Amino acid sequence: MKKLLSIFLFLMAVGSGYQVQAAEDDKPFAEERIVLQISDPDPFKQTLVLNVASNLLKAYGQDKVDVEIVAFGPGLRLMFKDNVNSGRIQTLTGSGVKFSACKNTIAGMAKILGHEPELNSNAVPVSAGVVRIIELQNQGFKLIKP
Amino acid sequence: MKKLLSIFLFLMAVGSGYQVQAAEDDKPFAEERIVLQISDPDPFKQTLVLNVASNLLKAYGQDKVDVEIVAFGPGLRLMFKDNVNSGRIQTLTGSGVKFSACKNTIAGMAKILGHEPELNSNAVPVSAGVVRIIELQNQGFKLIKP
Amino acid sequence: MKKLLSIFLFLMAVGSGYQVQAAEDDKPFAEERIVLQISDPDPFKQTLVLNVASNLLKAYGQDKVDVEIVAFGPGLRLMFKDNVNSGRIQTLTGSGVKFSACKNTIAGMAKILGHEPELNSNAVPVSAGVVRIIELQNQGFKLIKP
Repeated sequence: MKKLLSIFLFLMAVGSGYQVQAAEDDKPFAEERIVLQISDPDPFKQTLVLNVASNLLKAYGQDKVDVEIVAFGPGLRLMFKDNVNSGRIQTLTGSGVKFSACKNTIAGMAKILGHEPELNSNAVPVSAGVVRIIELQNQGFKLIKP
Repeated sequence: MKKLLSIFLFLMAVGSGYQVQAAEDDKPFAEERIVLQISDPDPFKQTLVLNVASNLLKAYGQDKVDVEIVAFGPGLRLMFKDNVNSGRIQTLTGSGVKFSACKNTIAGMAKILGHEPELNSNAVPVSAGVVRIIELQNQGFKLIKP
Repeated sequence: MKKLLSIFLFLMAVGSGYQVQAAEDDKPFAEERIVLQISDPDPFKQTLVLNVASNLLKAYGQDKVDVEIVAFGPGLRLMFKDNVNSGRIQTLTGSGVKFSACKNTIAGMAKILGHEPELNSNAVPVSAGVVRIIELQNQGFKLIKP
């Protein structure tokens, strides 16, 4: 029984180790790493941040640039399930762009709405948008707020 | 007399040296240093920048993160004496968050108003907001504009 | 004939080499290099970004700070030929401030207008605003968005 447990724990460890490895190797040839911030409510800012992501992919090539869009505050609306840009989000996700949604903002909106807002299935909740930005900066990402 | 003067000058020098030392040691255990910029007029931006400061304290712990909010341009309104957020500014100051107000903006507003705007007592005037931001960046602070 | 060609190629190389050298030596005594971003449509942002550029020149001295303003998205309007700030842009150019206009934005606006927008003669088109910002960051520029 003890042996079974240690095999299980070993597989867990290997499993989680593999996940981390996979995440780090997502863009092994990236020469630039860019985190784009959206925290404004204006719909034109949603278009602009997606345009900037597209321009980065076009300028450097999909494999040479690692782009993550972090939304917090009123900027979270970009990642709502029914946002008009969900088609573009899908396309950009297919090109390796990541979308991160601030859990603190989700919790704050849930209090007002009475329920959590429904998010785009490509958006990954992160503990706090600003903390995710700092983490990425510590990994060599440059922060740009379009 | 000359001796008294040099003792006086010596104490002055020690005194100012001590002040600088104290300032640098404000957060000796800080692992992250973040300067938050506010230069927009929208009241929701005032709420957002204070939320981000709170989230940083919550995520890292009060002693592990050094946060300074720098206001210039229309963002200075956050640090007006009668701003609705003065209670939150007081609480955040108690947690070691610093508030810096651009003197160039104060001078510009004084020209229009006919007198200097009254500032929150926790706001410290700095020569120019942008210069303060650069100084902090040179000390290892990361700049984030919510 | 072959000799003439190599002389021509040599002069081309010298010529382009000289240009690069000249660009790098624009502000040989600069202690700070700052890229200011404008991507918002609000006219007050145009005033603010120019004020920040002026404050930087005043604080550090014209020879000690290298400032480039990069416009993209709706921020490009600052660099339209008929923008009300063209006088200030002229003065700042005289003090060594550079103005860069995003070609992707110009192309996007041309589609809507039916013709390219007329730009201020001091504005230099760059392939993509965000790519120019990244280039400058890689050269040691700090990015600030007023």
